[in-house]
Amino acid sequence: MRILGIDPGLRRTGFGVIDVQGATLRYVASGTIVVPTEQPLSRRLKVILDNIREVVRDTQPDVAGLEKVFVNANPSSTLLLGQARGAAMCALADCDLDVHEYTALQIKKSVVGNGHAQKEQVQIMVMHLLSLSGTPSPDAADALACAICHAHFSPLTERLGAHAAPAGARGRRIRRGRLLA
Amino acid sequence: MRILGIDPGLRRTGFGVIDVQGATLRYVASGTIVVPTEQPLSRRLKVILDNIREVVRDTQPDVAGLEKVFVNANPSSTLLLGQARGAAMCALADCDLDVHEYTALQIKKSVVGNGHAQKEQVQIMVMHLLSLSGTPSPDAADALACAICHAHFSPLTERLGAHAAPAGARGRRIRRGRLLA
Repeated sequence: MRILGIDPGLRRTGFGVIDVQGATLRYVASGTIVVPTEQPLSRRLKVILDNIREVVRDTQPDVAGLEKVFVNANPSSTLLLGQARGAAMCALADCDLDVHEYTALQIKKSVVGNGHAQKEQVQIMVMHLLSLSGTPSPDAADALACAICHAHFSPLTERLGAHAAPAGARGRRIRRGRLLA
Repeated sequence: MRILGIDPGLRRTGFGVIDVQGATLRYVASGTIVVPTEQPLSRRLKVILDNIREVVRDTQPDVAGLEKVFVNANPSSTLLLGQARGAAMCALADCDLDVHEYTALQIKKSVVGNGHAQKEQVQIMVMHLLSLSGTPSPDAADALACAICHAHFSPLTERLGAHAAPAGARGRRIRRGRLLA
């Protein structure tokens, strides 16, 4: 099963693609869609729409996981975030992908073993779980973490069970962004 | 110039298409996209995306006007509205339409002459300005009003000037939803 994870945002939208085979997670691709800020809103949303569709076309995922955005105390910011999220969802649905939503808490718990983990901890655990040679950017790491989260929640990958990455993640401790044996 | 107006919403999205020639406004089409509530969010957004693209394909507008949604005090509602609005904007941008945004105040002022007009007043003035035989549904009326608003604000239709519909609207008074001579 190939999973596309998306961390939506109006300025930067992260994406990450992984393959899941048995208990093995394999990195396929990741990156950040940087949205030009000076354009009208509809053009900015189209950048998200077009780029996610391109990622889907290039990587052919079977399913998508989307991070639930932070509901800001500022209603205008929430509205802008909602619009970016709407564009990301439209792109996925337009490619006939089922979209599964996860909160940041679920994603962090799934990847780091702690729902309140810091951004750097997510980056390091993603690098570790996918055997990457370097840390992905924060947005790409969050998107990859979302894909990993779906791998653990998906009924199709129930067989991952106790051997899944979160168990591995729980087996290690992280302090100040460093993995402890 | 043919203008498509959209009143976005996650349950019901109104659309209205008008032609503007000189000082004349002509009704082309309008309706309401009713979004099934029991489906997952991504499927609901795709209903908005697909239906607006279909309206654009069928009516071939030159430009679009979009009502700015009400920023709700409830952040979750604002997020949902934002996502519906993002889907509507994506559909318009995906059809290469420029999207112009207007507040409810601008739209009501443009159509009724009073930024705080009631929904029924908007329906009646839209019916009057476009010489319709009956009142359109509230969502379709709001969308048509948004298209009329763009006709007044657009530099291309500056020639409408004082003879434009809002002047006509101002020339009449409405009380309790009834047009007064």
